[in-house]
Parts: sequence; C-alpha cells; structure tokens
Amino acid sequence: MTGPGAQDDLARLSLNQETVKQWSLPELADGCAAAGLRHVGLWREPVQKYGVEAAAKLVRDAGLTVTSLCRGGFFTAAEPEARAAALDDNRAAIDEAATLGTDTLVLVSGGLPAGSRDLRGARERIAEALAELGPYAAERGVRLAIEPLHPMYASDRCVVSTLAQALDLAERFPAEQVGVVVDTYHLWWDDTAGAGIDRAGRGGRLAAFQLADWVTPLPEGVLLGRGQLGDGAVDLRWFRERTEAAGHTGPIEVEIFNPALWARDGAEVLAEVIARYRQHVLPEK
Amino acid sequence: MTGPGAQDDLARLSLNQETVKQWSLPELADGCAAAGLRHVGLWREPVQKYGVEAAAKLVRDAGLTVTSLCRGGFFTAAEPEARAAALDDNRAAIDEAATLGTDTLVLVSGGLPAGSRDLRGARERIAEALAELGPYAAERGVRLAIEPLHPMYASDRCVVSTLAQALDLAERFPAEQVGVVVDTYHLWWDDTAGAGIDRAGRGGRLAAFQLADWVTPLPEGVLLGRGQLGDGAVDLRWFRERTEAAGHTGPIEVEIFNPALWARDGAEVLAEVIARYRQHVLPEK
Repeated sequence: MTGPGAQDDLARLSLNQETVKQWSLPELADGCAAAGLRHVGLWREPVQKYGVEAAAKLVRDAGLTVTSLCRGGFFTAAEPEARAAALDDNRAAIDEAATLGTDTLVLVSGGLPAGSRDLRGARERIAEALAELGPYAAERGVRLAIEPLHPMYASDRCVVSTLAQALDLAERFPAEQVGVVVDTYHLWWDDTAGAGIDRAGRGGRLAAFQLADWVTPLPEGVLLGRGQLGDGAVDLRWFRERTEAAGHTGPIEVEIFNPALWARDGAEVLAEVIARYRQHVLPEK
Repeated sequence: MTGPGAQDDLARLSLNQETVKQWSLPELADGCAAAGLRHVGLWREPVQKYGVEAAAKLVRDAGLTVTSLCRGGFFTAAEPEARAAALDDNRAAIDEAATLGTDTLVLVSGGLPAGSRDLRGARERIAEALAELGPYAAERGVRLAIEPLHPMYASDRCVVSTLAQALDLAERFPAEQVGVVVDTYHLWWDDTAGAGIDRAGRGGRLAAFQLADWVTPLPEGVLLGRGQLGDGAVDLRWFRERTEAAGHTGPIEVEIFNPALWARDGAEVLAEVIARYRQHVLPEK
C-alpha cells in the first residue's frame, strides 16, 4: 500500500493543521508532502507568525494547495467599535486567504454577547457582517463559509447551530460570496443534515467538507474532545457519500482538536489519519 | 412578599428533587410545603429507596402533588435480553408513577449502543418500545413523555435531540399514551423550538415543561452543568409564554443538576429558585 498507485486515493484528502498542532509550518509542509498529501487547511495564528507570504510559498513549494483558512467570524458583538474591529479583522483574514491561494475562509460566527439572551438578534448581526464582507471577499476570489457549530457552542462560540440555519443565512447572499461548511463533528446528530447537504448542493453552497469523529465523555469546556476518524459515533462514509451525491467532489479536510493526538509524533498521527480515512471514509473495497 | 397573596404566583411551580439532591424525601416534602409550593417532581431511585407507597403518602400528606417521575427509557439496546429487561423496568416505572399519582413518566430514550453509528435504527427501537409500553401506561393513567435531550447527549444518553424528532416519534401513537417534554436546557438553542411547541400544543402532546438555564463552561461529561434560573443564556420567559400560547397551563418544573447548588442549604436553594422564577419566568411587573 505504499506505491504511487495506492496514493491516488488521497487525491481529495486535506490535513487541517490543528490536527497536528505539534508541527511547525515547515514540518507540516514536509510531513504532508512525504505522506503523499496534496492539500492542507491552515489557521491564521501560525500563518501570521510565520509570515503569510512565506507560508504561501512554503506550502506551494511542497506541492500543496490550501483548502481553507480558519477562521474569520465573531460577528455578534453589539457595540459599534467591536463590530468595526471585527469587520477589519475579517478583511485581513480575507486578504490572507487570497495570499495563501485558498478560496475558502471558514467563519465561526460568534456566540451571544455577555448577558444577552437574544439569539435572533445575534444571528441578524451575522447577516449584517456578511453583507459588508461578501463583496470584498468575492472580489479577491474568496468565499465566506459559514460553519454551523454543534449546539453545545451556541452561547459562547457560534449561534449558528444547524446546517439549515447556516443555509438560511447564506442564501440571503450570492453563492459566490457566502457558502457553508459541512463538518461531521457538528452535524452528525441531526436527522435533517442530509436534507441540508442536498440543499447546499443544489444551491452551490457547499464550500467545505470537514471530518472529525464524536467521542465521549466530553472534556471540560468541550472544545478539545474531537475523536480520531473511526473512534466514535459518526457515520463518516455516509457523510462522504451524501456530499458527493450533492455534487461535492472537492477536498475532504480532516480537522481534529485533541491533545492526545498533539502529544504524539506528527508523522505517526498523519499516518493514522490516512489509514482511518481509507478504512472509514473512502468506499469499502 | 411573604403573605399568602404573594404565594399565589407559585401555583404552577414544581421543584424537581434533583435540584435539591441534598434533601431527603421528608426534607423535600417539608421544605417545599414550608416554602408554599404545591408540586414536586420525583426520581425513581430515591423514591424506591424510601418506598414507593410511603413516598406517595409523604408528599400527599404535605399537600404536594407529583408532577412527573424521572425516568423511564433507555430503549435503544439491540440485544433481545437487554430489550426485554428495559421493557420490564419501564413497566415498573409506570406502576411507580401511578402509585405516586403522577400522570407523567419522563423518558430518556437512550443513546447509541456501543460501537453503533446507526441513529435511525436506534430511534426505530424507541418507537418499538413505545408501541409496547403505551397501552400499559395509558391503562394506568400515565403518559410516556419523550424528552428530547441536548444534541451533546446524542451518543451516550438520548438519540432524540430535538422537539421535532420527539414529536415525530410521539405522533405515531395516541396522544393519551405518548407526549413530549419541553426542557429549556435542551431546546433553547433551536430556532425551530417555537414551532415545535406550537405543534405539541395543537396535538395535545405537551406533557411536561421543565426549566434550567444554560451556563458555560460546561463541566467534564457535561451532565452536571445546568445553571440556576437567570444565570445563563436562556430566555426562560419566552419559553413560558410560548408554552402558554400553545395551551400549556400545567406545572412548570425546575430541574437543575448542579453540584454547587447541592453543596448549599436546601431551603436557601429553594428560596433562590422561587426568587429567580418570579424574576425570570413569571410575567414582568
């Protein structure tokens, strides 16, 4: 399983760098290239630290394309100064995405402001921000990708909790400006997710497809408890098939936040991701 | 605010005993009566320990009615022996509810069996159990109340995650056999919850209405992190108004699992619950 032929089944696989947070950007570029990957997903903080132009060259020279940049968003503040700062920061994120050559900026839209119970108002402020940023992004070849986050993040990270909500927001704007992210970790429990994927496909809104598994018990704060592919409750193959049926033939990005993976050798983690991807995501042989 | 007139606004308030787990059943009966409450919600384990008949007499003698018994359910096992045992245990729970004089048995329907990723199959096994138990319950004046649990419990506790899913299940059976529970902690994030409440009201399915607030960060295991009324993100008054508009004029049960409340004096916690109920749930003055 190590010849070039065997590698062809990795054509769509993208490794989000948070999965191997222990790797520096050069280690990531080298490690992914060595493992036969063609794509990576990047995060703003490590890219800024390394230098955006330098990071773009680094991954390009390693033969990798950037499938998405995480993340813009946090649009729900109510005060004008905070809102203006969020818009400025998102314009910078769009510029960085364009420099990295990715067409997808993933958005974590923001939770409820402190003391607020107004979910509807917060969602409306997201729409206002999308209206501001959509044209700016599209002019630079970047699409804003609304990521519905699991409902357990609704108060503190993202008031967009379902794919239907994300599409309700996205569809208020042109498809080349605003799309949605299908992340199995956030959507696996929802019996309307399949219908949402179909709807996203029909409207040309399926901007990114990300994988992580759902494992319990959840850790305190519930942020760093994502499971390695195959370790949990998610029918990953079903999601791959359904997104394909909806027309998505682009990258499949693996994004797992888990300190147990970060404590291991990065190359070993990537090899495991690849093996699990073959076993649980690709068609059964 | 301590005269008999002021107490009238507590006519619908019910204290679920898990909110004051530090209290024995006699302490609960005395404490609730002393605070002017008319209703309690009970759990099977402490009731069994005290004796079901004795517990029924205890609360009756204190002038309290039992608004619900928690909990039946755990219907999702696949093996015949485990399924038969679950049905037997639920028949016992129905008998206990009847003895306690409550018409509502709250169901936590069960998560995915170990190693399974088949949410649809698990939900179908719940329907099979409801078909078995519904007539048995109705004959005893007890209704099975499906509680949709927050999606963060979908793998290990309850594959019924939304009010719409609960209603889809309940509506396959007569309304006098199977209803649903509206618990703010589980449903607050869902922009379709209002439509679900309306639908439950129209169909005569709204069997119980429970309150807890949503606070973060969530603790490890995410089971014991419910917030005192008013401490979190939930618009409790909106839920009370919406359930009333849907025709629910019955008990409003406060059910908060939180070790910080259990570490305090029970009477003090109940006084706080009452104050918060007046401030955040009842109509504004």
